[in-house]
Amino acid sequence: MKTFLLVAILIATCHGLVRLRDPVTQRGPQKFENSIGKYKYEVGYLKVPIDHFSFTNDMEFNLRYFLNTDNYESGGPILFYTGNEGSLEAFAENTGFMWDLAPELKAAVVFVEHRFYGKSQPFGNQSYTDIRRLGYLSSQQALADFALSVQFFKNEKIKGAQKSAVIAFGGSYGGMLSAWFRIKYPHIVDGAIAASAPVFWFTDSNIPEDVYDFIVTRAFLDAGCNRKAIDKAWLALDELSKSDSGRRYLNILYKLDPKSKLENKDDIGFLKQYIRESMEAMAMVNYPYPTSFLSSLPSWPVKEACKFASQPGKSQEESAEQLYNIVNLYYNYTGDKSTHCANAAKCDSAYGSLGDPLGWPFQTCTEMVMPLCGSGYPNDFFWKDCPFTTAKYAEYCMQTFSQISYNKTLLRPLAGGRAFGATSLPSASNIVFSNGYLDPWSGGGYEHSDKVQGTVVSVILKQGAHHYDLRGAHPQDTEEVKKVRAMETTNIKKWIKEKARNVRRFN
Amino acid sequence: MKTFLLVAILIATCHGLVRLRDPVTQRGPQKFENSIGKYKYEVGYLKVPIDHFSFTNDMEFNLRYFLNTDNYESGGPILFYTGNEGSLEAFAENTGFMWDLAPELKAAVVFVEHRFYGKSQPFGNQSYTDIRRLGYLSSQQALADFALSVQFFKNEKIKGAQKSAVIAFGGSYGGMLSAWFRIKYPHIVDGAIAASAPVFWFTDSNIPEDVYDFIVTRAFLDAGCNRKAIDKAWLALDELSKSDSGRRYLNILYKLDPKSKLENKDDIGFLKQYIRESMEAMAMVNYPYPTSFLSSLPSWPVKEACKFASQPGKSQEESAEQLYNIVNLYYNYTGDKSTHCANAAKCDSAYGSLGDPLGWPFQTCTEMVMPLCGSGYPNDFFWKDCPFTTAKYAEYCMQTFSQISYNKTLLRPLAGGRAFGATSLPSASNIVFSNGYLDPWSGGGYEHSDKVQGTVVSVILKQGAHHYDLRGAHPQDTEEVKKVRAMETTNIKKWIKEKARNVRRFN
Repeated sequence: MKTFLLVAILIATCHGLVRLRDPVTQRGPQKFENSIGKYKYEVGYLKVPIDHFSFTNDMEFNLRYFLNTDNYESGGPILFYTGNEGSLEAFAENTGFMWDLAPELKAAVVFVEHRFYGKSQPFGNQSYTDIRRLGYLSSQQALADFALSVQFFKNEKIKGAQKSAVIAFGGSYGGMLSAWFRIKYPHIVDGAIAASAPVFWFTDSNIPEDVYDFIVTRAFLDAGCNRKAIDKAWLALDELSKSDSGRRYLNILYKLDPKSKLENKDDIGFLKQYIRESMEAMAMVNYPYPTSFLSSLPSWPVKEACKFASQPGKSQEESAEQLYNIVNLYYNYTGDKSTHCANAAKCDSAYGSLGDPLGWPFQTCTEMVMPLCGSGYPNDFFWKDCPFTTAKYAEYCMQTFSQISYNKTLLRPLAGGRAFGATSLPSASNIVFSNGYLDPWSGGGYEHSDKVQGTVVSVILKQGAHHYDLRGAHPQDTEEVKKVRAMETTNIKKWIKEKARNVRRFN
Repeated sequence: MKTFLLVAILIATCHGLVRLRDPVTQRGPQKFENSIGKYKYEVGYLKVPIDHFSFTNDMEFNLRYFLNTDNYESGGPILFYTGNEGSLEAFAENTGFMWDLAPELKAAVVFVEHRFYGKSQPFGNQSYTDIRRLGYLSSQQALADFALSVQFFKNEKIKGAQKSAVIAFGGSYGGMLSAWFRIKYPHIVDGAIAASAPVFWFTDSNIPEDVYDFIVTRAFLDAGCNRKAIDKAWLALDELSKSDSGRRYLNILYKLDPKSKLENKDDIGFLKQYIRESMEAMAMVNYPYPTSFLSSLPSWPVKEACKFASQPGKSQEESAEQLYNIVNLYYNYTGDKSTHCANAAKCDSAYGSLGDPLGWPFQTCTEMVMPLCGSGYPNDFFWKDCPFTTAKYAEYCMQTFSQISYNKTLLRPLAGGRAFGATSLPSASNIVFSNGYLDPWSGGGYEHSDKVQGTVVSVILKQGAHHYDLRGAHPQDTEEVKKVRAMETTNIKKWIKEKARNVRRFN
């Protein structure tokens, strides 16, 4: 269960580490100027119904958005980020591609927050306290929020945008949302860039449940890790944990926080999981230049990590040290961390850096049930915790949400695929699905190869990690990502032209 | 307001008049043999969640379906009727086209009831008593019920159907649902016949709000009614209502029930409305052979009615009599009605024949806000009650649903168009939209002419009333409807083949 939880959280964490700065300039009610790094935007809120699909509750709440119209000219397109499971700032900062496009397209840039994340809490600080509140957290409600937002921007907020093209952007779960937004609301969204969107990662999809760790392993081995080194190192940890002296060695080597010190041999499971998670995460953010997205990291961090495990350790201690170097690279590259807390259950802030730590887990305990597990040799260099079963997962959900009257009939493994399609998207059009070969989430991507079907383009970045293409241009960018962004730009322009043609035809 | 209400209700009434017969044979739990006219089916129930889009309520309820597999062969298609606003029996009886198709296609025939209608009451006889219950009545919840139903039939109920093609059928609101079912769930539905579906009848659609009565008027004039006769007759009613003797004359002429007798000149409004509604309804069911769909009627009832008004009456009395003959043809063709009750507010059973009289009005007071009104000369031969305004409509809604904590923020005029598209359906494919030139609802149909765009076909039946093509073959069928059904059959076969190709490709 833990693996899945972690990985599930990682997709959330992905964008969760950016500091929220306070508004610096106030301009009338609910209108602020804000900035993240080099990007500046107005912060606003719009009212949306708590329930778009039923009418038992007439409540409305404030959904947060960021808007920049510096480059916008009347009638220009709206580039619309479909916020995912985290505070909106991170998406604004890490989706430089949209900002880069705005001048050429004379576009408005919009980011809309996903309900129940960041500042878009329908019930304020009570939002996560009861299923009757948190139950309104769902992907389809979020999509309906976005649809209403587009109407708001076109008809009220952005001058001259009534007939503008709307292009959705999103990465990861946000990429799933951007694709589904186009598919479910084609009359509102004219095209979508869905980056690293595991749209076919449901229980009734055709993917192996252990594909995530398969790809993590492949990425590490391709980057120079020696499989025997890793295998030997796990064994070394097991062996060392069996004796007092071994545990003492590990506690010191790993600088383990007193709360998560190894006290008996079973505790090694926590440490191993901690290491595994750092490797899984590193595979996601394996970018060609230094980033501080999930964690501060050097360029090509997986390659960097694998320098520590290019050949089997000569002793148990050396093997243990290889893994320590890897985990320390991930969690402590900047060197300001004096201890590691490897036992999530005992650490104060197991989900410390997440604004809304239970949001994504809740989604995976209702409709976004995404099977994930490892099966060990030969699939991956971790260990077997497959199969993923709904029954096991229900236990985890019951435990995690025991305080809020969660009931396991709310775990609906077929709901996501039923709503969106688990194995095919027959009506998809005007979508670019980009996936990274290095990114474990690509295992559930739309296609596993480059392919054009009508107006749907699938592209695989051989040297791409998790939604690399959404990032802003960078001097160390690969030639490949430049080409992919150019291709995406070409498609976006085509969709904008098509929209203009349709406007002329029908108005 | 009244006009809209009536017309809104008519679309509901449409299928509401068929007697519910008791199950005759019980075969195990929740399994019955039933029959309507010549059609036989098993009656069953499947469990569906009360809320597919949020997780605040884990309740489930029983959704009713009818199933016939007499002609089904393993792997054959499922012909799936998306139930609309009424008891399911009426759809089973009045959609003979599906039954006629089954033998040739070796198909299973399925009708699934719309939640909150017929026997599919989530809260039993409490379903309409509180907004917290009735609020779960919505088109999108119904579509999600249907999606779940398809999974149930394919995976559990119908042997060998796991990879079967699913073709949706529906008429009127049911036609809107069948089109939207294909559009929103293309991974579940392979094609749809959407008959007389006013998919573009929202407040933000491009249709004139008075188009309904425009078409009613056109149908009557084309069938031989004399416009001057009708105009004169309304004036005659107004004039007669001003005097005691005139009212006495009308009370006797119209055999008015004591409860709805004209007592002062303002009462004439009720009588005029009663007549107008009968004409509006007759235009919908203007079929070439006798039917008892909304009411027992002769063949081509509009033509029959117009025999009474082919030239202006020579006196006020004669003019009043012309309208009497028309209204009596509609409400009393079989002659068993001894009185008319024209004042809905005072009649015991204003919505007598409807199983769930407040269902469709509730839908129009939430998301299905369809502007309807008359503007009188020259548009139509009624009188002006345009414009339709949301504010006015909200008043009606508040009044109608005052007992159940309805709040006018629940009236969301843009919700329907936002969810489904008010002016275009850019991702539509594998749909036949059929509309009848004689049918007032065709004013909000997908197209107003024959047209093929990709795999979407629009066809207008010049001699067609409300979803005539869905009816079973009849000796007096027009040549035109036979051709349309043949075209629809050709398309259905094409979609079934396409599905088989995709199954081979992807499995």
